[in-house]
Amino acid sequence: MRGITYLLGAVVALTVVVVYKAHPSGHAEGEAAPIFGIKTPPGYRDWRLISVAHEEGKLNDLRAILGNDVAIKAYREGKLPFPDGAIIARLAWSYVPSEENNKVFGRAQSFVAGPATNVQFMVKDSIKYASTGGWGFAQFNDGKPADEALHNTCFACHVPVKTRDFVFTHYAR
Amino acid sequence: MRGITYLLGAVVALTVVVVYKAHPSGHAEGEAAPIFGIKTPPGYRDWRLISVAHEEGKLNDLRAILGNDVAIKAYREGKLPFPDGAIIARLAWSYVPSEENNKVFGRAQSFVAGPATNVQFMVKDSIKYASTGGWGFAQFNDGKPADEALHNTCFACHVPVKTRDFVFTHYAR
Repeated sequence: MRGITYLLGAVVALTVVVVYKAHPSGHAEGEAAPIFGIKTPPGYRDWRLISVAHEEGKLNDLRAILGNDVAIKAYREGKLPFPDGAIIARLAWSYVPSEENNKVFGRAQSFVAGPATNVQFMVKDSIKYASTGGWGFAQFNDGKPADEALHNTCFACHVPVKTRDFVFTHYAR
Repeated sequence: MRGITYLLGAVVALTVVVVYKAHPSGHAEGEAAPIFGIKTPPGYRDWRLISVAHEEGKLNDLRAILGNDVAIKAYREGKLPFPDGAIIARLAWSYVPSEENNKVFGRAQSFVAGPATNVQFMVKDSIKYASTGGWGFAQFNDGKPADEALHNTCFACHVPVKTRDFVFTHYAR
């Protein structure tokens, strides 16, 4: 009897921990982005790194691409298409020269992340988003969803990488 | 009695989970880097993102700076000096133009992470590394420690940011 009670206690405690881990920052909050109805996924800033990039031109940013557990697992296993539940987050910051670093290097060579520009998400749901390759798209500027016109441009831009399930970013090993 | 047994079960289960979390990928492996004796920390590729950067010149890389749980907590709380146990990882990859992305953008503007160049670590231990600001330094090229001459240059380069506990990278919000 004591053994069973002990076992029950352990199971309850483990369940509590697993549930906590699955929702470390609670449920999605804030306003949903247009068309795809995506809210900012909770805890995305804690997700693991897929890769980094720099865009010149109008974007002029440094970016980090992060993935939730489902996305990271698929990337590492080279699994395509991404399974439902995968979410990819693209964070971006202004591309800013670092005077501090340049002094140490003795030349102007160092560029770092300035203020955040915007955050984008791709959410895989092959049923809900069947008409856009199984992906929902969202962009948030300073926590607020971008407008509908912008969200209408997302999928078309990703079509050229259809063979990689519409995802541009390669995993950085 | 039953309550106490239940409680004990819960405590044991929680302890198991906490210990598992602290060592998700086992112990450090591989050859130790010279001078500071640092091995590649297990699971560092899973650590959370501090920031991103681009270095031109000879380095010509895109880099991601990750932190273990102790480092991330200190960064987010603005806590200086970093507490013992903090580890900061700097991953870097060759700075490579993406023809694929440029086609979509219609201009040459996209740079992505190519092959890895090297990985560096800063490990905080205020006793062990007292003579170098409380930090031990290590660089690994393709998993192999860099030579002693290189490791002799690390601390001097970090002295200009002594007021930020010898750490260059700011947390990207």
